[in-house]
Formats: sequence, structure tokens, C-alpha cells
Amino acid sequence: MKECERIESVTVHAPATVANVGSAFDAIGFAVHDLGDTVTASLSANTSIQIRSIEGDMDQLSKDAKRNTASVAVHALLCALGNETLGITLDIYKGLPIGSGLGSSSASAAAAVVAVNELLEKPFSRHQLVPFAMEGERIACGTAHADNVAPAILGGFILIRNSCPLEIIELPSPAELCIALVIPNIELRTSDARKVLRDTISLRSATRQWANVAGLVAGLYRGDLNLIGRSIEDVIIEPQRSKLIPGFYDVQQAALQRGALGCSISGAGPSLFAISDSNQRAQDIGRAMAAEWNNHGIEAKYMVSQINTGGATLVSSPVSVDQTTTAAL
Amino acid sequence: MKECERIESVTVHAPATVANVGSAFDAIGFAVHDLGDTVTASLSANTSIQIRSIEGDMDQLSKDAKRNTASVAVHALLCALGNETLGITLDIYKGLPIGSGLGSSSASAAAAVVAVNELLEKPFSRHQLVPFAMEGERIACGTAHADNVAPAILGGFILIRNSCPLEIIELPSPAELCIALVIPNIELRTSDARKVLRDTISLRSATRQWANVAGLVAGLYRGDLNLIGRSIEDVIIEPQRSKLIPGFYDVQQAALQRGALGCSISGAGPSLFAISDSNQRAQDIGRAMAAEWNNHGIEAKYMVSQINTGGATLVSSPVSVDQTTTAAL
Repeated sequence: MKECERIESVTVHAPATVANVGSAFDAIGFAVHDLGDTVTASLSANTSIQIRSIEGDMDQLSKDAKRNTASVAVHALLCALGNETLGITLDIYKGLPIGSGLGSSSASAAAAVVAVNELLEKPFSRHQLVPFAMEGERIACGTAHADNVAPAILGGFILIRNSCPLEIIELPSPAELCIALVIPNIELRTSDARKVLRDTISLRSATRQWANVAGLVAGLYRGDLNLIGRSIEDVIIEPQRSKLIPGFYDVQQAALQRGALGCSISGAGPSLFAISDSNQRAQDIGRAMAAEWNNHGIEAKYMVSQINTGGATLVSSPVSVDQTTTAAL
Repeated sequence: MKECERIESVTVHAPATVANVGSAFDAIGFAVHDLGDTVTASLSANTSIQIRSIEGDMDQLSKDAKRNTASVAVHALLCALGNETLGITLDIYKGLPIGSGLGSSSASAAAAVVAVNELLEKPFSRHQLVPFAMEGERIACGTAHADNVAPAILGGFILIRNSCPLEIIELPSPAELCIALVIPNIELRTSDARKVLRDTISLRSATRQWANVAGLVAGLYRGDLNLIGRSIEDVIIEPQRSKLIPGFYDVQQAALQRGALGCSISGAGPSLFAISDSNQRAQDIGRAMAAEWNNHGIEAKYMVSQINTGGATLVSSPVSVDQTTTAAL
């Protein structure tokens, strides 16, 4: 970009993400294609962050910049730059259903910080943006986890080895891995899904769980889809959260009967994900899972995706204007 | 081997192993060089397994074939062959101190089953021998874990993703990884080390632990020794077992001050292992750790090794005799 130009508006799409991935609760997440939120960030003559519009949220989200995940994330970014009074206007399009377990709040926060970073000519790397988006997550969920925001920004399979200090490890994403994501028409708040979890677990279960987590990581490096499928087995969180998801075991069983290599809860639920080694089989699995939820009187949609290794992406070319015309900014 | 020949005696060395590897309690283990047990298995005219000699055990081990880890393991092997009445004589040389946390019981069981398998012209693969050696481990420790016996047989870093059915995954062993092993002159029974462990743990600690286990596996695949070092951090078992090891935190601190990338308890203890990226630094670390134990009035030895990727090895060439001379067998 020439020095005399200044971008005034950037639009970014951030994808849906599957956190936990069965056994790896609060530690691993991955991104999928197509589904996601879109945020347009524009420079404004104001001295604060403002949310001009939110579409697709069925009036569920606050336009108060102190309470919206996208604007809170942008605020954290501006604070880090020492530029809290920069005027930013956000227009948010929610492509993701809220409370579905697909990282809806994270996608908005991720899209917003990536858009603003582009707008400001990239003062931060993609990795450096993750903590800002985590601040948005804190508003939405009560805790600043990175297992949705990191894959929403970076794409692929991401391990959060440590939250404080944040340590993000990009894991391999086998190209053959196909995900069926099934979204029932029921809402489950992440905060409620956290409340059902017992504070203590047995050492025996924990030992089994971390052997599975090790198997999951080994499976990703080996590109061994069967090993990945076996290793997402979750003996700790799933038995507790499945009670909040009507029909859970029947829908999971439907996936396995259709050849899913593994199936568990996406994030805090109620959506489920199943993994497969072919697009066609994943389609069959998704269809069977949705049909099983229908049998329980619950509407459900499904989609199939490979792993999205790109993460958040610019949707439109930045709109540039000569800096002389934006002097008021 | 020609059909007319029959081996009558095989000697096998099985290495010391470090189980748990910090965070990966009951899930991951690795083998080292030099230290280990040696077992000679010979065909005999008897109709049972007999332990003829045990050296190096300071009269601590039973020669009762029903109570010794090596003979119990061989018995399991013969049962699987449907040949329980085959006469086998075992001569055991304990190179490993008992109750040191270096997989002493496993090394004898591993050496014994590999030796007998060679003696019988390899009816089983190395992987298939692991469950037999686990039966020996059950006698020694009360539970049939594979995180010592599997690396003792197979070598390298081994993940036990599941014990029942047994699933063994061979992980990469970075060539640059150097281990300092420090063995204090105190004995700690595995069964006692298990008794101190609480049955329940916090979900918060468990989550941190499996993020570390994931980091450990990722570090092995990436050959990232720093990541491996950070990821062996054990927030669950080490705080409990360290109370049984006098001077633990001072010795660990001595390792870290000398540049160890990580340091934790080997198996059930009391030995400690520290990891480093060079042989020279590992020597310094081992020396400093042993000296620190000396400061606590405890004698300690140390050794340095890369990862042993070969596992159990034949020591002598098999002694063959013409089958006509062994017709009595």
C-alpha cells in the first residue's frame, strides 16, 4: 500500500470452530469452512468503538460496545496499541447460530480483531491477535479460553498448551479428514454447560482421558484418521454435558452406525461433530444424525467440511481512499 | 536357522525405562541405554519354568516361579502357545536397582519374554510380547501397566493409548534428546508410591495436565526439545509423590539451574530424570543433581543417555546344537 493511502474499511469472515474435540477439553480446537461470522470494521471520526449494525442475531446481542464480544476484543487491541480513542465502527453479520457450540462469540471477536488489524496496517501478527479475541470470549463465556478464538483466527487444529502465559501450538490438519457438523434447533448457553461440570474427577478417568488426548495428537501427526476417531472418546465431559442435549446418545449412535470414526459434542454443545474419511460418508453421517434428532422432535441442520486451515479471511478488497480525504479521521 | 538345529539358550538385555514422563502418568514411557537387566532362557528337560539363578538383586527377589516377574511373564507366553509344560530355565542378572523407578521388574519380564520368544523361533512379534510381560508387571506392582514393559521391549517413546484392549503407539524419539537419570540410594516401592495418590483430582488440574500431555506428544513429533521440556510439567502426581522423596524440590531445582529443559520423577520414583539438548549439559545436570542429594545426606548415582530406540536386544549369539542331541527336550 502506498503511504499516501489509508484503508477506511475492511471486511473479514471468521469461521465456525469445534472446541474440545472430544477428549481435549479446553485444550484443542479446529476450524471448518463456510459457516462463520463476518465483521466490517471502518475508521470513523468518533473517539470510541461503536457497533453500527448486527444482522442475523435475531436481536439477541447487545450493541453496547462494552458488552459485545467483537467490540470488547477490538478495545483490547486498541489498548495494546495505546490508542484507545481511535474511532472504529463495526458492522457484524452473524452467520453462526448463538449458543450452538460452534464458537459463535469467538468468530465475531476473531473477525473483528483481524479486520481492525488490517485496517491499521497490521501492527500485530495473527498469533498476537489471539489474546485480544480472548477478551471478547471472556465477556461472552465468563472465561478467556483460546480453543475457539485461536483456530477462528489461525485456522487448522490448534493446541492451547497454556493459557497464562498463552502458548499456541499449530497441529497438523489431515487433508482427508471430513467433519459432519449437526446443529439442533436448541440453545445451550456455554455458562450453563460449564455449570454442570463437577469440579473433581477420578484420577482413573483423567488418566484415560490424557491417553486419548495423546492419541489424538499422535493421530493428527500420523494422519491416522482411525486413531483420531478412537482418541476423541471423552470419558469426563461428555457424560455430564450429554444430559443437557436431548437425544444425544441416539444421535451419536446414528453417526457411529453410519461409519463415523468418532463423534462427540462440539464445544459446549448442543451441536455434535462426527469425523469421517470421505465427504460422501460424512454427508451420510450428517443426514442420519439430523434425521435422528428429527425422530426426537427436534429440528436439526447439518453440514460437511474439511478442516479450514486458513482461519479468518478478508472478504472484500480493502477500500482505500487518498489520505487527504480522510484527514478528519 | 536350519530346520535340523534347535537353539537351547538365548540371553537378552532389556533396558531401564522411564515411565510417566512427568505429565503422561500411566500413558507414556521411554527406554534408555546401558542400564538394564539380562535374562538367559534355556530349554530344559523339566515340565515347568524354573529360576536357576538371580544375581545382583541382593537376595531381594523370589526364585519361586509363581512370584517372580520374569517367570510369570514367560508362563503367560507359554499359556498363549498352549504349551504350559515346556521346560524353561531362567538365569537373571539384575543390572537395575529394585524399587528405583527405572522399570526394574519390567526389564526382567521384558528380557525373559524376548529371550523365550527367540528360543522358540519367534512365534510372536515384539508387539505381541507386551501383554505377557505385563503379567509379570502385575505380580510386581499389583497392576498390569505397559508403560515400562512396552518401551523395555520395543525401545523408544511409547504411548499406551489403551490398556484393555491394549493399544501401543510408537512415538518419535528425537536423536538430540539427552536424558540425565539420577538414582538416589533410597528404595520406594511402586505399591507404596501408588498408595499416596488421591483417587480424585480437580478438573482444572486435569485440564492443565492433558494440555501438557498434548504438548509432549507434539514436541516429540516436532523434535522441539524445549516444548518437550515445558510439557513434562506434572501438576497432579509429582506434588503427591515428591513427599516420599527427600530433597526432591532441591534436586529438581539443581537440574533446572544447570539448564535442564524439564525434570520430573522417573516412574514411581525415587529416581529423577532431566532432559537436555546435549550430552555435555546432561552430564553437568546429572552431576549437580547427585551432588544436591549428597547435600541431603543421600548417596546418588547418575548416568546420561540418549533415547534407546532398540529396546530389548540379544546379548550373545544363540547357542545352537543339532536337534538330535536335544531330543530329550
